[in-house]
Amino acid sequence: MTTPSRRDLANALRFLAIDAVEAAKSGHPGMPMGMADIAEVLWNDYLSHNPNNPKWFNRDRFVLSNGHGSMLQYALLHLSGYDLPIEELKRFRQLESRTPGHPENFMTPGVETTTGPLGQGFANAVGMALAEKLLAQRYNRPEFQIVDHRTWVFLGDGCLMEGISHEAASLAGTWGLGKLVAFWDDNRISIDGNVEGWFTDDTPARFEAYGWRVIRNVDGHDPQEIRTAIETALRHDDKPTLICCRTTIGFGSPNKAGKESSHGAPLGKDEVAATREALGWPHGPFEIPQAIYDGWRANNAGLVREHQWNRLFDAYAKQYPQLAEELTRRVRGELPDGFAEAAEAFVAKLQNEGPTVASRKASQMAIEAFAPLLPELVGGSADLAHSNLTTWKGSKSVATPDPDARYVYYGVREFAMTAISNGLALHGGFIPFDATFLVFSDYARNAVRMSALMGAHAIHVYTHDSIGLGEDGPTHQPIEHLASLRYIPGNDVWRPCDAVESAVAWRFAIERREGPSCLVFSRQNLPHQPRTPEQVRAIARGGYVLRDAGGTPDVILIATGSEVGLAMQAADVLAGEGVKARVVSMPSTDVFDRQDADYRESVLPRAVRRRVAIEAGVSDFWAKYVGLDGAVIGIDRFGASAPAEVLFPHFGFTVERVVQAAKAIA
Amino acid sequence: MTTPSRRDLANALRFLAIDAVEAAKSGHPGMPMGMADIAEVLWNDYLSHNPNNPKWFNRDRFVLSNGHGSMLQYALLHLSGYDLPIEELKRFRQLESRTPGHPENFMTPGVETTTGPLGQGFANAVGMALAEKLLAQRYNRPEFQIVDHRTWVFLGDGCLMEGISHEAASLAGTWGLGKLVAFWDDNRISIDGNVEGWFTDDTPARFEAYGWRVIRNVDGHDPQEIRTAIETALRHDDKPTLICCRTTIGFGSPNKAGKESSHGAPLGKDEVAATREALGWPHGPFEIPQAIYDGWRANNAGLVREHQWNRLFDAYAKQYPQLAEELTRRVRGELPDGFAEAAEAFVAKLQNEGPTVASRKASQMAIEAFAPLLPELVGGSADLAHSNLTTWKGSKSVATPDPDARYVYYGVREFAMTAISNGLALHGGFIPFDATFLVFSDYARNAVRMSALMGAHAIHVYTHDSIGLGEDGPTHQPIEHLASLRYIPGNDVWRPCDAVESAVAWRFAIERREGPSCLVFSRQNLPHQPRTPEQVRAIARGGYVLRDAGGTPDVILIATGSEVGLAMQAADVLAGEGVKARVVSMPSTDVFDRQDADYRESVLPRAVRRRVAIEAGVSDFWAKYVGLDGAVIGIDRFGASAPAEVLFPHFGFTVERVVQAAKAIA
Repeated sequence: MTTPSRRDLANALRFLAIDAVEAAKSGHPGMPMGMADIAEVLWNDYLSHNPNNPKWFNRDRFVLSNGHGSMLQYALLHLSGYDLPIEELKRFRQLESRTPGHPENFMTPGVETTTGPLGQGFANAVGMALAEKLLAQRYNRPEFQIVDHRTWVFLGDGCLMEGISHEAASLAGTWGLGKLVAFWDDNRISIDGNVEGWFTDDTPARFEAYGWRVIRNVDGHDPQEIRTAIETALRHDDKPTLICCRTTIGFGSPNKAGKESSHGAPLGKDEVAATREALGWPHGPFEIPQAIYDGWRANNAGLVREHQWNRLFDAYAKQYPQLAEELTRRVRGELPDGFAEAAEAFVAKLQNEGPTVASRKASQMAIEAFAPLLPELVGGSADLAHSNLTTWKGSKSVATPDPDARYVYYGVREFAMTAISNGLALHGGFIPFDATFLVFSDYARNAVRMSALMGAHAIHVYTHDSIGLGEDGPTHQPIEHLASLRYIPGNDVWRPCDAVESAVAWRFAIERREGPSCLVFSRQNLPHQPRTPEQVRAIARGGYVLRDAGGTPDVILIATGSEVGLAMQAADVLAGEGVKARVVSMPSTDVFDRQDADYRESVLPRAVRRRVAIEAGVSDFWAKYVGLDGAVIGIDRFGASAPAEVLFPHFGFTVERVVQAAKAIA
Repeated sequence: MTTPSRRDLANALRFLAIDAVEAAKSGHPGMPMGMADIAEVLWNDYLSHNPNNPKWFNRDRFVLSNGHGSMLQYALLHLSGYDLPIEELKRFRQLESRTPGHPENFMTPGVETTTGPLGQGFANAVGMALAEKLLAQRYNRPEFQIVDHRTWVFLGDGCLMEGISHEAASLAGTWGLGKLVAFWDDNRISIDGNVEGWFTDDTPARFEAYGWRVIRNVDGHDPQEIRTAIETALRHDDKPTLICCRTTIGFGSPNKAGKESSHGAPLGKDEVAATREALGWPHGPFEIPQAIYDGWRANNAGLVREHQWNRLFDAYAKQYPQLAEELTRRVRGELPDGFAEAAEAFVAKLQNEGPTVASRKASQMAIEAFAPLLPELVGGSADLAHSNLTTWKGSKSVATPDPDARYVYYGVREFAMTAISNGLALHGGFIPFDATFLVFSDYARNAVRMSALMGAHAIHVYTHDSIGLGEDGPTHQPIEHLASLRYIPGNDVWRPCDAVESAVAWRFAIERREGPSCLVFSRQNLPHQPRTPEQVRAIARGGYVLRDAGGTPDVILIATGSEVGLAMQAADVLAGEGVKARVVSMPSTDVFDRQDADYRESVLPRAVRRRVAIEAGVSDFWAKYVGLDGAVIGIDRFGASAPAEVLFPHFGFTVERVVQAAKAIA
């Protein structure tokens, strides 16, 4: 073999996938075999990246939305020269290998996002393309195209069936994300078989209806047709492009090509041998001839690319030092100098002024305070701007070319909104937030989970946090949502009790680079709580003593959000009756649980078992703090449509009931 | 006023909405004002219903997917003669009125489904139209069109932005649901303002891409154009129809028409007066002239309609007594004679034979056993038929005209699947089930919630219930899902430990008419557990003593699903060390919690505080059973990609660890 053909190069992808799946005894060979020719053309002829530095900022982003075909991506990374040695491919799907069953951004260099939950990678890619557009319009100058990269995404029939594909494609079309190019792996097969029984959409017409440029009928196994399609996409940048590639799943397998049997299981020893024969690939498992490696290696080209960009950036930095400094800071994920002090001063001012406002209003006050300091803060709401209170003075829509455009009118699309947040966060240069009613976090739920799994620094704002929402009724009143969000590993949930805690929660979420935060706010006004400076500082520990009674308390009242005021009133009444009640405000159980044991003991002494938790949500969650001997005032049924002031007593949230519960505990 | 004009009739809807919102001081007048003319034509000229009997089986189904416009529906029900007196309209949005903020099927006669969470009503309607199609093809005979009704749905821009609209419309198109007619309220306004900034889809082209018949450019305020569009829809029954109605939100309001300010707040006293003037409606709030009532009342026509149908059905019953009996039984929601006995025998046989299988396989065995007995069982999977194991011998796709067609190939559309299940259940005549991996219950989460809120008798099957899923990795491994699903009020979650518990769970779910059940099954084999007949009976109590140690136990091990086998092994080891361990199998905490206090005490004696809960999911959930003094062996971080047999010990699920935990508790 002297100069390998394109097909030879693509076959290297195929056999790395086939052999890795065979070795793992599980996995998905069909998709890599089907998309290998497309991937080969894209990566060898067009993808602008640097395998030596997977974090080079101006690289093209590549997203495998049909993430079950992970071996395609691992093979691409390995062959093109990323730090992913063949030994890792041999350990496909084994514990702590860098080649897990689905691509995981935190495990593998060169993997931009974690995919597998179908459709979300596509929405992440829309977020990445939006990030590029926004950075370009803020930082580029005519002679300096500092931010200038494409986002390429592979997607399958499954991604296109998912509802999130509709939401994300619609937004990409509206925003005219011309540097986004999607390749549809049109192989007519999903897990249950030929899709004609359940997927009869005219997908090209559908994407045209979203305002995309659609390139139809590309033979996904003909490199020249693939090249022509990509060239067409590159000639325009007014619209996103969908390239419709007709492919054969399991291409090359004599008996399984075109069949669902090649999708999600090893081909089997005999069929692997037959495929080797059919494709003319005489090499053993994991054997790649040097000529093939030579055809794939992108290290040198990548170094040159990054070097050229660095020179351009140096020149830019000379001419636009402030812009360059700001962009550099943002790319590093660092907050501006003085942010912490400004935030602390803002919190102190609020504690001093003591406004009684809805915490959603307090959230907007925090956004107003922080957005001018943080050009990286980008966000919006799912068509509830004036309910979630997410706009700020002078905020400008991302649909405009304004250099400070960073308000996102997401429309009623909670799932794509959240996955786009993840894409913005993963791209870098942004701290995204999104917003809807707490109950509709349900619509976005798996994307919230993905924020946490990926360690994406995204902020999810959820207002109208309880029956306090009132007349809209049980469809709009969260009950189980606080507990359910807290149970997502790595996800911080905050439910502040007043404007001060709200500001601290926002600050904490902004500073928490390692993962997402959910900020949960009330519709209705919440009374300001008095605090010492020490107590103000303790808010950031997630739970703290807001009111104490001197000495060992007789009873501890634990509350969050709108129920903290109730606990404070109950403590007053109890004091009048000679019962020493401590009130613990617990805005974030997640953060509190991470504190050291001494601190936790100081707030909730193990010996004090008379404990009452109060929260307008499912009561069982609080058993972890009150145990079998305490009491919980919560809600374990659906809400109702009525004014909030009627609902709270109706559901038992009264001072009397808290007092009774506290006294009833033996 | 002698003979009111169509506009007069429509204005009655408008002013009932305007005045009710004004009285409630909250609500959404804009949509009822905008869609009143469409609703007037549909209800007065086409809707086949009987206000005297909202449950008449062959009625047309009317679904208000844009449920915030609830007053439109209440006004329609009131005027056309349902049992919804004007006093109830005056109590709009008040506690326990029959006119809650959003339509609730369990509160108001004539409301078919609970709407408000956008897009789901549309998917429910697809489920109802599918129900009609399937019943028609099983029960109708050429001379007897016993099942023959339409499903009409109103939807707004918000519904169309939501991803679920894509999933549901795609399926409706694929299935050719020709009796489904949707009216798009194309008013160009959503909450954040004119939709041009965030909703630029070519919606007609999009629906044509799904295989719908689309009628464009209908003036939604011109009764004749509306009639013409409906007549066109009625002339065909090969495809669902979308009628695109251009409307003005807040139609008739001089200063708020066409603006988002009319969407979600009262018009205000002055604007209400101005609107009365502009529309020529001199009547006071809630005053409806008799001539208007006369123009609306549908009671007599409804009685005649139902009477004619009853006569047809009587004749049908004479000619096809078995079919008529079966249909009648299904409509009543009753199970066939002998079902309970057959189910009991099946369970006993399993206990006797003791197969060691994956519980997903046990689930399929239960489906195989029960589906032939229950023609009302309809269901399928979101493209995971061979993983969820949801097919049965001879099951036939609903896309076929077979009289026993009831397997649904949903494609990768978890959210619409679940909402379609809700529609099938609400229509009546069916016990629907749907299926996906447990982790992807996230994608359907709000529809699961809606099952519970509505009391829909739907069964949600979730397989691959833990890290036991193995190599697909953390994106596919549920951690927080069991707890989160259990926290949905009214939702029963089952996680059986072997084939016997799996069969009992299926039986329980089938017999639980009042609400949904989630059946959660393993990918991997689970050992059969020995039981006395009494223990077999106790499974249906949700939790029971599977193994006891004589006398008061030293320690109680509580486990579910795949961890029950581990607990049994640990109890053996503990017995060898002289520790008396009780093992409680807790397949359904929801059902167990509903048992009387004596029973619960008999299983978990309050005095025994040495308790260890074992479940491959979040540990905090189990605090409600083990308290502050017990221990939980759970998982509080994301899973990993590796073979299941590697993962379980990696995450601490070993006999040794259970034994240690049991002994470590003081």
